[in-house]
Amino acid sequence: MITLYGFAVSNYYNKIKLALLEKNITFIEESIAPSQNDDMLKRSPLGKIPFIGTADGYLSESQAILEYLEDAFPENPLYPGTAFERAKCREFIQHLELNIELIARRLYKEALMGGTVSEETKDEVKERIIPGLKGLDRLTHFSPYILGDCLSAADVVAWPHFGLISLATQKIYGSDLVADHIPGLADYLKTMESRPFVQQVAKSRDAAFKAFLEKK
Amino acid sequence: MITLYGFAVSNYYNKIKLALLEKNITFIEESIAPSQNDDMLKRSPLGKIPFIGTADGYLSESQAILEYLEDAFPENPLYPGTAFERAKCREFIQHLELNIELIARRLYKEALMGGTVSEETKDEVKERIIPGLKGLDRLTHFSPYILGDCLSAADVVAWPHFGLISLATQKIYGSDLVADHIPGLADYLKTMESRPFVQQVAKSRDAAFKAFLEKK
Repeated sequence: MITLYGFAVSNYYNKIKLALLEKNITFIEESIAPSQNDDMLKRSPLGKIPFIGTADGYLSESQAILEYLEDAFPENPLYPGTAFERAKCREFIQHLELNIELIARRLYKEALMGGTVSEETKDEVKERIIPGLKGLDRLTHFSPYILGDCLSAADVVAWPHFGLISLATQKIYGSDLVADHIPGLADYLKTMESRPFVQQVAKSRDAAFKAFLEKK
Repeated sequence: MITLYGFAVSNYYNKIKLALLEKNITFIEESIAPSQNDDMLKRSPLGKIPFIGTADGYLSESQAILEYLEDAFPENPLYPGTAFERAKCREFIQHLELNIELIARRLYKEALMGGTVSEETKDEVKERIIPGLKGLDRLTHFSPYILGDCLSAADVVAWPHFGLISLATQKIYGSDLVADHIPGLADYLKTMESRPFVQQVAKSRDAAFKAFLEKK
């Protein structure tokens, strides 16, 4: 039995939750906030979420968790059938997370959390994520899923990240940079959001966001 | 046949080169600098190095490449024998790259390339990589390799990154933050540097650095 620790405001939490649901792995959720206490640091080296509990121990870092789920639960695979296709799927994920999401993340403090971000940071983020998004477009098929006619790990990762990056760039720049640079995004989101497990994750995410904003 | 594109100044290039050597995969190297020309962007979505050429096409993002090598060339495995051990190996790699190397990287402009970095950036990097290194220490065994008695992907990734982060923090802060926060580092480096393939990668790296600094 897997326990998923974290909360549904996090796009990385929602990535893992969607993977668990689409792979039909039994799991429970335990709500927990990032913290620096010793007990937390033993489970996740920076006290960050999400992390999971397994029969063998705890595991953090969302991409390591996604690979573990695929490795330990081979049914309902999220990676394609050949080594090169699997590699292209991982390339898409790495590119999206390293070259786009981790950059856009610097906006969240102002876009989502009521803080402020300097104009310099806003300019720098914009300058870096536009080439990132153009590069992502070169790796994307949308036929109708990112890598072809089946849902893959690329979709499970892209959907939660796209949602948050769209929201943040819309708030900060007055324009959704994901939609501006990824043609076909709207149809893709419709395809994804017709899936029951995606709807389930979206519903908990929206409720968690509402509760989060009310508490602030 | 694999072609490895890039140059030996890059720690990510050296990560892939060491993986190819330790797995005994036949490859050739083609020296190429990052660029934004169309031909390059088709092969690597941001025009970055390293990337590889395979019989099926090009592939970028070093961790996607490392996974591909393991997947397509299962002999001489770099990942351990169980799903959970493999997951802990990937967790180590993700933590090192996302929470330490990508942060420390902001120092390289001054530490290695003759540019300058603001005091604010230096303070921010230091503040973030120290908890990262303390977290890494919690994931590390050094018995004598990072995850136990065999070389694994964790070592193939850590050795090139540790070298560059040590060098950069020594130059910027006057103190090697990796050695300061990872007890056992010196003995570990001795173990790694007794391996012929590590020596081979170090030799090309040192020659590439020398040429790079002379050109500047």
